[in-house]
This record gives sequence, structure tokens and C-alpha cells, in this order.
Amino acid sequence: MTTTADSQLTESHLDADRSGADRIDAQQIEAGRRAHEVDRAHVFHSWQAQGPFDPMTVIDAEGSYVWDGEGRKLLDMSSQLVNTNIGHQHPAVVAAIQEQAGRLCTIAPQHVNDARSEAARLIAERTPGDLDHVFFTNGGADANEHAIRMARLHTGRTKVLSAYRSYHGGTQLAVNVTGDPRRFANDCSAEGIVHFMPAYPYRSYFNSTSEAEETQRALAHLEDMITLEGPGNIAALILETVPGTAGIYAPPAGYLAGVRELTAKYGIVFIADEVMAGFGRTGRWFALDHWDVTPDLITFAKGVNSGYVPLGGVAISEAIFETFRDRAYPGGLTYSGHPLACAAAVATITAMEDEGMIANADRLGEDIIGPALREMAQRHPSVGDVRGLGAFWAVELVKDRTTKEPLAAYGGSSPEMNEVIAALKAEGVLPFANFNRIHVVPPLNTPDEDVRFGLAALDRALDVADRYVTEQIRHA
Amino acid sequence: MTTTADSQLTESHLDADRSGADRIDAQQIEAGRRAHEVDRAHVFHSWQAQGPFDPMTVIDAEGSYVWDGEGRKLLDMSSQLVNTNIGHQHPAVVAAIQEQAGRLCTIAPQHVNDARSEAARLIAERTPGDLDHVFFTNGGADANEHAIRMARLHTGRTKVLSAYRSYHGGTQLAVNVTGDPRRFANDCSAEGIVHFMPAYPYRSYFNSTSEAEETQRALAHLEDMITLEGPGNIAALILETVPGTAGIYAPPAGYLAGVRELTAKYGIVFIADEVMAGFGRTGRWFALDHWDVTPDLITFAKGVNSGYVPLGGVAISEAIFETFRDRAYPGGLTYSGHPLACAAAVATITAMEDEGMIANADRLGEDIIGPALREMAQRHPSVGDVRGLGAFWAVELVKDRTTKEPLAAYGGSSPEMNEVIAALKAEGVLPFANFNRIHVVPPLNTPDEDVRFGLAALDRALDVADRYVTEQIRHA
Repeated sequence: MTTTADSQLTESHLDADRSGADRIDAQQIEAGRRAHEVDRAHVFHSWQAQGPFDPMTVIDAEGSYVWDGEGRKLLDMSSQLVNTNIGHQHPAVVAAIQEQAGRLCTIAPQHVNDARSEAARLIAERTPGDLDHVFFTNGGADANEHAIRMARLHTGRTKVLSAYRSYHGGTQLAVNVTGDPRRFANDCSAEGIVHFMPAYPYRSYFNSTSEAEETQRALAHLEDMITLEGPGNIAALILETVPGTAGIYAPPAGYLAGVRELTAKYGIVFIADEVMAGFGRTGRWFALDHWDVTPDLITFAKGVNSGYVPLGGVAISEAIFETFRDRAYPGGLTYSGHPLACAAAVATITAMEDEGMIANADRLGEDIIGPALREMAQRHPSVGDVRGLGAFWAVELVKDRTTKEPLAAYGGSSPEMNEVIAALKAEGVLPFANFNRIHVVPPLNTPDEDVRFGLAALDRALDVADRYVTEQIRHA
Repeated sequence: MTTTADSQLTESHLDADRSGADRIDAQQIEAGRRAHEVDRAHVFHSWQAQGPFDPMTVIDAEGSYVWDGEGRKLLDMSSQLVNTNIGHQHPAVVAAIQEQAGRLCTIAPQHVNDARSEAARLIAERTPGDLDHVFFTNGGADANEHAIRMARLHTGRTKVLSAYRSYHGGTQLAVNVTGDPRRFANDCSAEGIVHFMPAYPYRSYFNSTSEAEETQRALAHLEDMITLEGPGNIAALILETVPGTAGIYAPPAGYLAGVRELTAKYGIVFIADEVMAGFGRTGRWFALDHWDVTPDLITFAKGVNSGYVPLGGVAISEAIFETFRDRAYPGGLTYSGHPLACAAAVATITAMEDEGMIANADRLGEDIIGPALREMAQRHPSVGDVRGLGAFWAVELVKDRTTKEPLAAYGGSSPEMNEVIAALKAEGVLPFANFNRIHVVPPLNTPDEDVRFGLAALDRALDVADRYVTEQIRHA
């Protein structure tokens, strides 16, 4: 468990090189300034109002650290967008990309390529059940688009059930199955999508008072939805095994098994979205492994090669593969199974295996992050809930623990949250924040002392949040 | 102009090393065999029935050549999927990828990165008009999805007009705006898409007898469609500047200017899809440059970095950028502006510029490919039409020049076409074929003698096609 003494030791341990002066020279800083100017003139950024946006420049990165435009060293507790599971610039993966680049950068998807074959084999080896066929895409969004297509053609049905408080990608179909406010502006051109209430114990939609009750009620709700939408119309149910950006709320015991049972009962294809939770993030190869559940399709991206080269994909069960054995699969893309991306996946999976990163993520969660966050939750009245597993944790901030009023409204930010984020950055930590939550999602191989340094910084940033807790509750 | 004598000279010039024996050893062939076995066990391929599919193994590639699983050398007249515009393994681009991989493989889209900035700057420098803002995606499909989203939010309208005989990508919205049979199995979950008849002089939908008439009638049809669909409901018109896989049918004079005029008149966003035609393929940076037309959005992918690393994007006009100056753009992706992909784009654009590849593509079309194909069309009764520009040509095969009955039906293959394709492969040429067409789409920097070798092989393969020409027509 992290104690204040530990934190201070950790801070001083790292303080010496936090200025970045040992690494970044004036020339790099000048180049970063020019890059920033050109960015503002020509780069259109994701999910932003382009005018007021002043992006941070990243000059350099290594392991769990990035250096900003002023050459300041920041601990990357975000793993960028929760994708650099092996940290930045892992030498074995960099070498594999360089080797493959020298040998064969690209080849059309209809051909056989050794890197593509090997990546598919290594992934199939790790998926549960008979999900032994891999369709490669460029990322998580198109992986989910194709998984839904496979489900529709396999079942001959069109409706798709998906959970509120979820994220499945930015393309039109993917953003419409998404259950978060990023969908709101895109609510068109996507028929047949129906959202259900997920199991979410901290803010139960079912007035549950225990995890067991939440599981039972959430499953009853899901079966009601299936019945009322017409089981014979529903092609797929898509669900993040552990919802990520939407709040890292792991399913209560029995929930996923229940979802598997209901989808099997009604002939609905169960798509497990492991784009963020997969490839070691939760301390298992797939988050599903925590609950021994085998879906029909698994979608992945991010961690599969830490995002070193764009890659995503769908792992396909034998039954769904059979549908496309003699019937053409009506989907594809130029960069499916891209050799450079697949070589990076092979090297990433191998490095994770060789260096025990999955077990390390599990240990980080069990021994360091979990205990530290639970201890902070006791001391900080602004912490409504802490939850997670492996290197995948959320801290939910509230103004009032009784009412659970969030420190930023659903779908928004707030001056209070912005202060907390700024405090973390001032401490030398690059955080991942969403609405009223701070996520603790470092690379799986972050050294213990760096994780402790980040947690100590968070501990101090929570003091800022505590100032906004309603007075009577604070003193209750 | 290619003569038979030329072809024979060319063939003997290259014959010496066509066995591949100088390059491929037994170990590589054995590795290729293993890769093929693993592929069949685990790789799910684009657009295929997975069972009967026996993909070709590619062991090696350089410039305009690939080596297959038996170590046989094949001239790549397909540029894979018309993406390796600079050929395989261009040393400057390989070096740039290796350098960037060693420096910084990935960074989240919200940050500034120098490779991303520079790629955006170089692209903006080459786009027409004020399309100076670049949103990066992973490929052409998501580029088109995001362009449509921008158009919908910019106009507040939802309908999208797109042409039959077009291709815009494999994700759900992109494949539904597509106007080719790949859409048929995906006809759901995409409201508000309306297809119009394109200008296509060889098989005019308007009974035109001249190009001028085709332009006039096709534009009248388009305005009728706009009027009958309700101009106030139409957000965007998406059109490949020169439709690619659908047939490389360049617009007749005046057509694109007319489309620009009509879309401007009705406040419709004009999206030019330059995914296949862009980045030098037609002998200009953008195919649009042939007709001096400036759309509101340009989508690109493939040639931007020859597909060495997955990359696509949207170039955005000032007016549409303004819409998202103070209002968040509701779209994004983890790998937007991926440093490795952008570094490859910077190196590709620079190599194209330094080595005069655009001008070379123009010259190949004017001096070698065009004259040779037109000469073949005179000698081979199976050739219904040849057309193209730069390194972007289609040969349309028919059973009968008068009725224009195609050698394979729309949306299908045929034993006759398969024989032609097999004849080309037997000659040592990897062709690009679609329905009843063979496309001549080599890398822009293919040496003249290799282009002549490929054309000579095509010339002989057309003898196979000629055998299926209806007798009375042949002797007419």
C-alpha cells in the first residue's frame, strides 16, 4: 500500500530528471514550436472545437514517460488513449517494425504474408473457445463495424443491442452503437440500434443494493429488452467486457455468464468489445478470461500492438466462419492484415509474454494501484468510487458521496475537474480524464516506483477535488 | 508505341531473371509455405468465401515486382490495390519509417507531433483552393465516413447523393454510399443515401452519342435528381473524381465543373473522393487538377504514402473548418495522424516530388500506355473500350463490340475473364481485374521497359479473350 512517506521518497527519487534537461535540447524545443504552429494551421483534431484548442506538443517519449513542448517530463498515466500497453518505444517492437519495413512494408489483403499469418496465429492462440479465425482491420471502430456485419449476415437479422455508457468507435455505425454523448451529434443513418441499461453497481439503474442484486436485475432487464424488441429481430449484442472510457466498470459476478446464456438462448451473436480491455490491460490476455466467458466474436485493437502501427481486428468463432466458408464475406479494406502492423503485433505479443507483462499488470492492480486508491478513497471525501483491475482503474469524483452528484455532469467537463487535471499535470503526470472521472491506466510494464509516483501525485490532486465537496457532507 | 518487335525485345530483356532464382532461396520458399498453411488456418480475408480461397503467397517485393510462393517474379501491374504508387520498398520511404519508428512510433491524436504537422502541411500545399485543413484517418473508408459527417453537420441536412458504379469503402456508411455490388449484401443501417447515374460515355445511361452530349445529359439528370429529392435535404454529393475499381472512367469535359456548379447552387457539400485517383495516379497530384475544379472536401488514402503504413484523410475547406471552429467536431480515432503513417507520407510526397514521379505517370499515359492500348484495341475484337490517364487505365472486354455485351456480367466473374487473368499471370504479370475489365495500374515510377513488358503480356492475353468474341462480329 502507498503511504505518504513512500510517495515522498518516490517523488524525490524521480525529481532529479523531471526537468527533462538531461534529454531534450534547445533544437528539439524549437522544432516542437514549429510543429505546433504548423499543427494549428493545418491539422484538424479528433473530438475538438478546432479554434480554441491548444494541443500539447510531444517532443519525445520512452517507456512510461513523454516530454512536452517545453521539454518537461510527464509520467504517462493515460497510455495515450489507453493503447501503449507496453509503453513507448519498446526496443523489441521498434526493431521488429524496422526489420519488417526493410523487408516488406505492404501487400494487398488477398495475398499470404508471413507477418499476417503469424499475428493471426498468436492471437488465435490466446482467444477463448474456437475463436480461431482473425479478420484484421485498421482499428477498433472498423473492427466493430465488421463484427456487426458478420452477425447480421450470420443471423439474417438486423437489430443490434448495445449498452448505454459504452464506446465502440468513431465511424457512423460504430458511433451509433456507442452509448455515450459522442453519439448525440451523429444520431442518424444507423437503423436498428437499441440501447439497454448495463450493470453498473455504483450508479445502479435498477436500485440494486448489492452486486448480486445488480447482476440479477440487469439480466432481467436485458431479457425484458430482448423480449420487447423481438428476439427474432436481434442480430447481435455488443458489449465492452469492461467498459473503458465510459467508466471502467467491471461486470459484477455472473453478469457476463448471464449475457452469454441469454444471447445463446435467443440465437443472438455476442460480440465482446475488447478494444481497450484486451491484450493485458486487465491483467489477463483478454478481460473475458476473468470470467471464463466465450463470446461469438471478439473485437480488438490498441493493445494488440500498443498502437505502434494502426491495427484492429475481429476474432471469429467456427460457427460464424462457417457462414462465410462458401459465401463471400462482403467486406474488406486495403490495409487488412497490414504487414508492418502485424509484425508489430507479433513483437508486442512476444514481448508481453517474454517479459511477463500480463502478470505484472495483474500484480500492479492487486498490490499497488487497488490498495492505494482504496486507501485514498477513505481519506478523500471527493472520491465516490474507485474500481478496476490490472492496470485499468477509475476514480469517480463527486461533490457529495450520499447523492453521488458528479464533479462534472454526464457528457461534460467542469472547472472543478479541470483544476484536478491541471494539478496532476503540474505534478508531472499526464492523466486520462472523462467527465467526473480520472482513470489510472499506465503502461502494463510501468516500474513500481513510477506507478507510486503517479499515485502520490493523484493523492495530492484529490486535495483540490476535496475543496468542492459539500460542507455538511465533509463534516458528517 | 508498342510494336510486336518491341514487346519481344522487352520480354527477352527481362526473361533472364524472371525465374526469381537470383533472389529467392529454398528457405524463403519453405517459410512461405508455412505462412500459407497458417493463413488458411487463421486469416479471414476481405471480400472472399473463405473455404475455396487459395491465396497467392508473396515472399518478397521490390519496385514494380513481387515474388510469389514458388519464388516466381511477377510484374505488379496492380500496384496491389492501386496503392503502391511509388512501387515496393522505396528506399527513402523505408528509411523514413525506420527513422520515425526509432524516434516515436505513436502518440495520441490530441497532441502535436512533428511528422503529423509536416504531412498536413505538404498535403495542404498540394490541394486546390482553400482546402488547407487536414483530418487524418486510417484509410479511405473512414475518410469518406468523416467527410459525410462533416457535410451533414455543416449543412444541417442528412441525404447524401452518390454515383452508381463507384466505390467509397468497406465500413457500413461508406459501403452504402458505394455504387457497386459490394453494397448489395450490406443494404441496411444507412438512411438517406440516394444514387444517381454517372457520366459514363462508353455505356451511356442517357443514350448520348458524344461526350458533350453525355456531359449535358448527365448534368441535367443530376439536377433532376436534386430537384426530385429536395435540394434542402441534401447534405453532400460524393464522387470519385475518376472512378477507380468501378471502371476508371474519367469524367467527360465539363462534367466536374457542372457538378461543382450544381452543388454550389443548392448548398450541397461536394466531396471529391481521390482515394485511388489522388497522389499522382492520373499524372497530377490530384485528379481534380486535370479539370481545375475545387470541391469542398477531398478524401484521400492509398497513394498518400503508398500504403506503407495505413493512412487516409480529409482535406477541409475554410468554410467547413469554420463550422468546427467553436463547435466540437464529433468524430475521431485513436490513430488519427499516426506519426509512423505521417512520416511515410512526408517521405512519399517528397520522393514523388524529387523524382518527378507525377510527370512520369503523365508521360507513361501519354507516350506508352495510352498509345499501346489504343493500338491493341484496333487489333483485338474483344476490346470494347480503352480509357485512362497517367498510370490509370482500363481495358473493357466484350463479347461483341456492337452490343457491348461484357465478357463478365456486372458484379461477377466469368470463365472467360478467369482465362485472361490466368494468361497474364502465366506471362509473369500480376493484373488488376474487375468484372469484364483489366486495369493497367502500375506504380508511377515503373521503368518504361517493364511497362512495355506488361503491355506485351496483355497483348498476348487478349488473344485469349478474342476467342470468345461472337463469330459473326469477329468476321464482320
